[in-house]
Amino acid sequence: MPSDRRRVRMGLAGLGRLGQFHAENMAGRVASLELVRVVDPIEEIASSAGERLGVAWSIAYDDVLNDSSIEAVVIAAPTPYHAPMIEQAAAAGKQVFCEKPISLEREPTERAIAATRDTGVKLQIGFHRRFDPDWVAATSRIKAGELGDVYLFRTSLRDMRPPSLEYIKGSGGFFLDVTVHDFDAARWMVGEIDEVSAFGAALTDPAFAAVGDIDNAVVVVRFASGALGVIDNSRAAGYGYECSTEVMGSRATARVGYDRRVNVEWLTPGAATRDYVSNFVERYPRAYVAELEAFAEAVRADRPVAVSGEDGLAAFTLCKAAERSLHDGRAVRLRHTDRDGHVYYEAA
Amino acid sequence: MPSDRRRVRMGLAGLGRLGQFHAENMAGRVASLELVRVVDPIEEIASSAGERLGVAWSIAYDDVLNDSSIEAVVIAAPTPYHAPMIEQAAAAGKQVFCEKPISLEREPTERAIAATRDTGVKLQIGFHRRFDPDWVAATSRIKAGELGDVYLFRTSLRDMRPPSLEYIKGSGGFFLDVTVHDFDAARWMVGEIDEVSAFGAALTDPAFAAVGDIDNAVVVVRFASGALGVIDNSRAAGYGYECSTEVMGSRATARVGYDRRVNVEWLTPGAATRDYVSNFVERYPRAYVAELEAFAEAVRADRPVAVSGEDGLAAFTLCKAAERSLHDGRAVRLRHTDRDGHVYYEAA
Amino acid sequence: MPSDRRRVRMGLAGLGRLGQFHAENMAGRVASLELVRVVDPIEEIASSAGERLGVAWSIAYDDVLNDSSIEAVVIAAPTPYHAPMIEQAAAAGKQVFCEKPISLEREPTERAIAATRDTGVKLQIGFHRRFDPDWVAATSRIKAGELGDVYLFRTSLRDMRPPSLEYIKGSGGFFLDVTVHDFDAARWMVGEIDEVSAFGAALTDPAFAAVGDIDNAVVVVRFASGALGVIDNSRAAGYGYECSTEVMGSRATARVGYDRRVNVEWLTPGAATRDYVSNFVERYPRAYVAELEAFAEAVRADRPVAVSGEDGLAAFTLCKAAERSLHDGRAVRLRHTDRDGHVYYEAA
Amino acid sequence: MPSDRRRVRMGLAGLGRLGQFHAENMAGRVASLELVRVVDPIEEIASSAGERLGVAWSIAYDDVLNDSSIEAVVIAAPTPYHAPMIEQAAAAGKQVFCEKPISLEREPTERAIAATRDTGVKLQIGFHRRFDPDWVAATSRIKAGELGDVYLFRTSLRDMRPPSLEYIKGSGGFFLDVTVHDFDAARWMVGEIDEVSAFGAALTDPAFAAVGDIDNAVVVVRFASGALGVIDNSRAAGYGYECSTEVMGSRATARVGYDRRVNVEWLTPGAATRDYVSNFVERYPRAYVAELEAFAEAVRADRPVAVSGEDGLAAFTLCKAAERSLHDGRAVRLRHTDRDGHVYYEAA
Repeated sequence: MPSDRRRVRMGLAGLGRLGQFHAENMAGRVASLELVRVVDPIEEIASSAGERLGVAWSIAYDDVLNDSSIEAVVIAAPTPYHAPMIEQAAAAGKQVFCEKPISLEREPTERAIAATRDTGVKLQIGFHRRFDPDWVAATSRIKAGELGDVYLFRTSLRDMRPPSLEYIKGSGGFFLDVTVHDFDAARWMVGEIDEVSAFGAALTDPAFAAVGDIDNAVVVVRFASGALGVIDNSRAAGYGYECSTEVMGSRATARVGYDRRVNVEWLTPGAATRDYVSNFVERYPRAYVAELEAFAEAVRADRPVAVSGEDGLAAFTLCKAAERSLHDGRAVRLRHTDRDGHVYYEAA
Repeated sequence: MPSDRRRVRMGLAGLGRLGQFHAENMAGRVASLELVRVVDPIEEIASSAGERLGVAWSIAYDDVLNDSSIEAVVIAAPTPYHAPMIEQAAAAGKQVFCEKPISLEREPTERAIAATRDTGVKLQIGFHRRFDPDWVAATSRIKAGELGDVYLFRTSLRDMRPPSLEYIKGSGGFFLDVTVHDFDAARWMVGEIDEVSAFGAALTDPAFAAVGDIDNAVVVVRFASGALGVIDNSRAAGYGYECSTEVMGSRATARVGYDRRVNVEWLTPGAATRDYVSNFVERYPRAYVAELEAFAEAVRADRPVAVSGEDGLAAFTLCKAAERSLHDGRAVRLRHTDRDGHVYYEAA
Repeated sequence: MPSDRRRVRMGLAGLGRLGQFHAENMAGRVASLELVRVVDPIEEIASSAGERLGVAWSIAYDDVLNDSSIEAVVIAAPTPYHAPMIEQAAAAGKQVFCEKPISLEREPTERAIAATRDTGVKLQIGFHRRFDPDWVAATSRIKAGELGDVYLFRTSLRDMRPPSLEYIKGSGGFFLDVTVHDFDAARWMVGEIDEVSAFGAALTDPAFAAVGDIDNAVVVVRFASGALGVIDNSRAAGYGYECSTEVMGSRATARVGYDRRVNVEWLTPGAATRDYVSNFVERYPRAYVAELEAFAEAVRADRPVAVSGEDGLAAFTLCKAAERSLHDGRAVRLRHTDRDGHVYYEAA
Repeated sequence: MPSDRRRVRMGLAGLGRLGQFHAENMAGRVASLELVRVVDPIEEIASSAGERLGVAWSIAYDDVLNDSSIEAVVIAAPTPYHAPMIEQAAAAGKQVFCEKPISLEREPTERAIAATRDTGVKLQIGFHRRFDPDWVAATSRIKAGELGDVYLFRTSLRDMRPPSLEYIKGSGGFFLDVTVHDFDAARWMVGEIDEVSAFGAALTDPAFAAVGDIDNAVVVVRFASGALGVIDNSRAAGYGYECSTEVMGSRATARVGYDRRVNVEWLTPGAATRDYVSNFVERYPRAYVAELEAFAEAVRADRPVAVSGEDGLAAFTLCKAAERSLHDGRAVRLRHTDRDGHVYYEAA
C-alpha cells in the first residue's frame, strides 16, 4: 500500500455542535483520514463521543499534541481558544484545520498564522462552502469565464433561530459570526473587494440591541473589478436555513442553492409541498465531508491548503470594515495587496 | 344589460413598444373596456395599428379628447408628454391611465395630479405588478399577516439589454426609469420607507458614464417598521428579463417569480433545460391585462383606482432620494405623512 | 380595415360549465371573434349569461342559425345534442366548433362529419391541448425531430373529483369522456396507433361499478412506429387536476406540464409550498382562448381547421378499442388508412 | 467501547462496476463496517483496488470465507455466481449481502435462500431504493396512510445507454435485469400484486431482437388492493438515467425523484439549464451507502434484514410472470401467501 493512500491520523478538539458533526464525519465518512482521538474539557462529553465513535478520548488537548502518531488536528473549540490552540499545534508540528474565525482580534489572528508559517505546518480554515460540490461546480465555471463580465454578486446566509445570548456575547458580533462566510465566498467567486457598506437592524429581540449587536443585515460591496455585490444575513429566518447565491454576468448568470432534505413532493388539494432544511448540517452534508477530505489530501500530498489562514484574515478584515461602516453610517474603503501568494487587506 | 357591465370606451395615445402592447390587450383581451381609437403623431404608426386592430386612428390627441363617447384614455406616450396630456385629459373630463413616471420633474407631477383631483377624474399609474396574479396572491397573504414581522424585502428588476442611448438620455435616469417599479412594490408589499442608500456602477458601456448615468444598481432601504430592504437592478442582465421578489418574515417567507414562456422541460444528455423570458411582455401577459381591467372596473363602479397619482409621486420622490444618495455617497432619510388617504414623502 | 382582420361573429350554444367558460373567453379574450348571442334551453341561464356578458341571448338554437350575420357557432351542449346540432349548423351554412365527443355512437359521428363536408363548412373539435402554448412548443420540436426516434409516450389526465352519477351515465363511458383527449394527443405528438390495451378499476365509489363504468384506468398503446405509450387517467385524483406528458426519444426527452395558479412559493418551517390547480379552467386559461382564436382565424382565412371531425372520429375509434380491450382482457389491434388528407381507423 | 458500536468486518467479492462502487463506500463512507479484503478473480483488478483502498486483496473467495475475523461478505460478482457464493458463505457462517438477482433460475434461488435459513445467517438483497432517504421518506408517509386509498402507482427506471450484448445475453432478460427493482419497489410501497401485463419492444438495436430480448417495456400491474400500477423501463433513455415514482391516493399524491448532480442553475439567453444524472452512481450516492449501513447494523444488532432473500424471490417470480405475459400477449395472474413472515408468490 503506497504511502500516499494512507489515512491521515487526526485528533479532534472541541465537541460542541459543529465538533460533534465533524467527529461523525471523521469517524465514518472520510476515506482519507482516521479519527484517532476526540478531546473536550467536559469529561462526559468526551467519553460519550469517544465510545459512540469507537475512538480514544481525552479532556486534555495535550493528549493529541503529544501523540506522535497523530499528524493533524481539527479545532472546533469555542473561538477564544482557536488562536492559542493553533499556536500549540504548530509548536507540536501538527497540521491544523481550524473553524472560523481564527480570533475575534487581529493580533492573535496574525500571530496564529505566523506560528503555522514559521513551523511549516498547514492551516486550513473551515469555510466549507469552498468544498461543496454545488458551489465548486458554479465557481469553476465562473472562473472559466462563462459568465462574461460579472456585474452582480448576490448571496444570502440566514439562520433559522438565533443562538443563545451567551453565545452572541462571545461571538465577536454579527459580521464576524455570520457574514464572514459570505465575504470569503465573494472573494472566492468574484474577486477582491474595494468597498464595504453595512446596514443592520435588531428586529427580533431587544437583547440584541442591548448587547450592541444586530440580528439582520444587508452588506453592499464594490469589487475591484467594479462589480457590485449584496449580502443579506439573518439570525432569525423563521422559515429555515438559507445559503444560496447568484452571480450575474454579461453573458450568463449562475444560481447556487439547495434547500431540502429529501426529494419528495407531497401533493394535497391545492398545494404542492416539499420539505425545507433548517440548519447547516441538513444543507451541507457533502461540504463538511469534502473540506476534511481536502485537508487530509493536502496533508498527504504536502500541497497548500485551499483556504489558508490568510484567507481567514482577509475575511476578518472585511468583517471589521463592515462593523465600522455600520457604526459610521458610511462606506468603508479597503486596500488589498498581493504578497507571497496571499492577499492582505487593510483600511484604505 | 345593466350599465355596470358596459364596456368602458377608451382611447389610447402613444404607440411605442408598450403602447402597442396595451393596444393589443385593449383590442381583444379586456372584457370590460372597448378600444375606440388609437393615437400616435406618426401617421403610419397610427394607421397601421388602427387597421390591424380594427379601430379608428388619429395623429391628434384631441380626436380622443373631443369624442364625447370616449370615457377614458390610456397614455403611453414618451414621458415628457405625460403630465401635459394628463392635464388635457382632466380638462376634457376623461378618466386617465398613465404610464410611469408622470414626469421627470416634481412640479409637473404635482400639477398633473392636482388637475385630476380638481376635475374629479381618476388617475391610475401603470405599476403593473400590483395587478399581476402572482404578486397579488403573495401581497394579500403578507398583508393578512402570514409572514409575522417582516425582516427583509428583497427584489430584482433587470432588463436583458440596455435601451438606446437616445432613450437613456431622456429617461430621467436609472432610478426613475427602472427602480421606480421596485419602490412602488416595496411600499405596496411592506410599507413606507424611511431611508434610502443607493449604489451604482456603469459597467457595460462607457456611454452610460458619459451621460452621467449607471447601468447597474443596488439600493438598500430601511422601512418605517425597521425592516431592511434591498433592490438590485440592471440594464444588461445578459441572460434575460428578471422580476422577482422575496419577503422574509419571522414566521414565513414568500417568494414571487416566474421566468418562462412555456412549461416544457427539455432533457438532453447531462442537461435539463427550460426556456427563459427576455422581456416584460413575455413575463407579464396577465398583469398588463389586469391593470387595464382594474382601471375599467374602477371607472365603471366609480371606485378609487388601486394605484394613484400620489403613489406615483411617492415612488418619484424615493427615486430622487436614491439619486441624491448615489451622488452624496451616503444614506438619505425621508419623512412621510398621511393626508386625505394618501402618503406624501419629503426629504427628512 | 381589411376584411381578414374582421372579428368573426359567433353564437354559442350550451351554457354548462365549459360553455360558460367559452362564453367568458368569447366575450372578452379573443380578439378575432365577436360573441353575438348565447343560447341555452333554460331561460334563466341564457338570460343571465347574456346580460352579464353584454350580448343577446335565446333559448332557441334556431335564433343563431337564422341570424345571417352570424358566421359560426360554438357547440358546448350536452354530448347527445352535438351531432344533430352540427348537422343543423351545416345545413344553415354556419362554421362549427364542437366540443368532444361528436357523439357516443359511430354512425351519428360519421353523419355529422359528412354533413359538414357536404355543405363545405368547417368542423373543429375541442381538443384544446393542441392549442396550448406549452404543448404546441413541445410538439413542434418533437415533429422537427429533436427527440430522435421516439421510444415512449407517457401521459396523465386526471380529474380531482368525479362528476355526478347522472353525468357518468350519459358520458359514454370513461374512455370516451376522459381518455379521448389523450388518444388525440398521442396521435398528434407521436403518430398513429396500432394496438390498444386497457386496464381499469372502480375504486372510489361502488356506483361506478354499478353502472358498469370505471374511475381509474391505464391504457397501453403501441404506435405504428413501434414506440410504446402509456396513458393513466383518473376521475378522483384527490390532490388536484393533472394533465402532463412526457415523450422520450433516443436523443432527448420532452416534458410538458404545469400545475399552479400563481407563481408564489410559501416557505414555513420545514416546508416549501406552492399552490396546485384543481381543474382544467385553472390549468388551461391560454389553451381555451387559443383554440377559439385558431378557429376564428381558420374561418377568416378560409383555411382547414387544425383538429378536424375526422380527428374526433379517430379518437372515438381508439376509445371504442379501449372499451373492447377492457371487456375482453386482451390487446385490440387497429388498422388506419390515409384518405383525402385524413386518417381513418378501423378494427384490425 | 461497547460491542454494539463495533465496525463489522467484511469482505467484498466482485469488482465490476457496482463492486468497485461498493468497495469505495465500504472503505470510507460507512461508519458501521470495516472493509477487510476485496476479491476478484482477475489479479490486476483485485490488487489495484486493494492498494487504492488500503485493504487486503485476493483472487480467491476462500480467503474471505476462511478468515474467521471476517463476519460478513458483500457479493457483487456476476449473477451466475451469486447462488453458489451465497451457499458457500452460509456454510462458512458469514452474513451475506448479495446483489440482485440471486439467480436467473428459480431452483438455485430457493436453494440459496434455504442455505442461509438453515445456517442461520442473514441474507440481504441489494434493492438499494429501499434505503434511499427520498424513497424512505415517501414510503413511511404512505404506510402511515397519508395518501388515503392508493389508486395508482407509477414508476420509471431507465438506463441511459444499453450494456454490451455480452452482458445482455447473460442478464436473464430485460425484466430480471431492470424491472426487478420496480417490482420490489411496488411491493414495498403499495403492496402485493395479483396480475402482471407486460409490453415490450426492441427499438434501439436489432441485436436485442436477435437474442430474443427487448430494450423498452411497459408493465401494468394490478395490486391485491385493486389499485393499478404502471412501470416503464428503458435501456436507452438517451437523455440520462431516470428513477422516479409517483403514488396517487384518494387524499394526496407523493412524488419521488431526483436527477441532478449539483444544485446549480445556469441561465443563458432564453434558457435555464441544470445538470442531469447519467447513471445510478450519480443518482444514488446515499442509497448505496445506506443499504450497507443497514446491513451492518442488522448484523451488529442481530436483527432481521430489511430486504430478505424471500423478497428477492418474490421480485424474481413477478419478473417471470412479466416474461410469460409478454410471450403470451395476455395478463398473468399470481397468488401470494404469507408464511413465516414472508410472502411467497406463485402462478395463479
